[in-house]
Amino acid sequence: MWHAVMPAGSRVRPKLSLAVALACGDPCPEAADAAAAAIELIHCASLVHDDLPCFDDAAVRRGRPSVHAAYGERLAVLAGDALIIMAFECVATGAAPAPDRMAALIQIIAAASGGARGITAGQAWECEPRVDVSAYHRLKTGELFAAATAAGAAAAGENPKVWRLLGDRLGEAYQIADDLRDVLGKESEMGKPAGRDADLGRPTAVCELGVDGAVARVRHLIDGAIQSIPPCAGAAELRALVLEQARRVVPRELTLVAA
Amino acid sequence: MWHAVMPAGSRVRPKLSLAVALACGDPCPEAADAAAAAIELIHCASLVHDDLPCFDDAAVRRGRPSVHAAYGERLAVLAGDALIIMAFECVATGAAPAPDRMAALIQIIAAASGGARGITAGQAWECEPRVDVSAYHRLKTGELFAAATAAGAAAAGENPKVWRLLGDRLGEAYQIADDLRDVLGKESEMGKPAGRDADLGRPTAVCELGVDGAVARVRHLIDGAIQSIPPCAGAAELRALVLEQARRVVPRELTLVAA
Repeated sequence: MWHAVMPAGSRVRPKLSLAVALACGDPCPEAADAAAAAIELIHCASLVHDDLPCFDDAAVRRGRPSVHAAYGERLAVLAGDALIIMAFECVATGAAPAPDRMAALIQIIAAASGGARGITAGQAWECEPRVDVSAYHRLKTGELFAAATAAGAAAAGENPKVWRLLGDRLGEAYQIADDLRDVLGKESEMGKPAGRDADLGRPTAVCELGVDGAVARVRHLIDGAIQSIPPCAGAAELRALVLEQARRVVPRELTLVAA
Repeated sequence: MWHAVMPAGSRVRPKLSLAVALACGDPCPEAADAAAAAIELIHCASLVHDDLPCFDDAAVRRGRPSVHAAYGERLAVLAGDALIIMAFECVATGAAPAPDRMAALIQIIAAASGGARGITAGQAWECEPRVDVSAYHRLKTGELFAAATAAGAAAAGENPKVWRLLGDRLGEAYQIADDLRDVLGKESEMGKPAGRDADLGRPTAVCELGVDGAVARVRHLIDGAIQSIPPCAGAAELRALVLEQARRVVPRELTLVAA
């Protein structure tokens, strides 16, 4: 479990969740911390299971052996399971000072992870003879980003629904940026083999839109994300953070957002 | 997910959980129902992942193809993940009328499922060169039974800790009865191949104690379980239910408990 979570990847989802909670005034930092940690734990669990031999069979993750490469397939299955469980335990323990917010936080995180609209459903598209590319990306990446912004707001006692669009757009931008890195990036910069999507015959935005089209789409999404930020005390800081993160996730050779 | 949960197995854990809630007066049936359902979902998830090729490679479960045999390994991994997530979502949704009890219910179920003391840790003993048999059974079976009684009490607003011993003893009895069935039973009665533990070189109570010793141990545990029931309004009904369940789980050719 430690190997799956440490050292840190980009931690973009929990950072986003905490940034939204902070922008909303964050009257219960324990609940926001718990939800952010839970979202990252779910993300890490999904990576462990995605890397399994029956899915991507990926031996490398974040520049190190993947969990199953290091500890075997059986412990990788169990570590993923235990990380999912830990995510919900984390909310139950951390959000205890705000019991009235606990149900909403768990529901937001669960809906983005399992069931018909979560990561597991997104990953399940890989088992279908024909893939709905848009649904695949939306469920596999977009929903957890939307959950990150919604949970940050819910932890702070604000209406989570009006915050989903920010996460939606950032999630799609992040996914396309990841596709661009896969096409353009070097393994040393990514911590995992480049060109993996093409090797696996996996549908990507770059295949659909071309590199220029994909870059334009990311720029459009980041602009739209920033415009979607609801009125709140910390809107200016949140806008700055979104731009900073956007700069970090996009391959260096592409000028994505104006400073 | 449906294939993993339906048609019903014995449902012994949720029945036990609901029986305890009822014995405690059950002032919040929604919370008790949610916790009982969550415990069964976790149990079903653990069966799906235990049956995977990398663990037991079991093609049959409850008299039908196992999930991976029916739908493939990838969907079996995802179905197990989604069932775990659904378990916690179920508590968050069902226990919403009792937000003050939600954290305790989730913590009880999570501790019995993941982390150092849960099912995943129990299953992980199968990956070690030497197995601590007692810890293996305790974590893989006993903890979820203890969680069932504790969660039933917690859902009803009672102290969960004093109810754990009942679940502990019933869990151990159930495990040994399962070992006995594996040695003595016929595949047609069990819904899965007999002699599987021996084929897998798996440590069982029957190997340690012999059949007579194992039967004596189950009888002792059922007696101890009944004696451990804390004072409560529905103690008599609960005792009767424990005896009835005990009769059902033990192979027919063995006379286990006096009527």
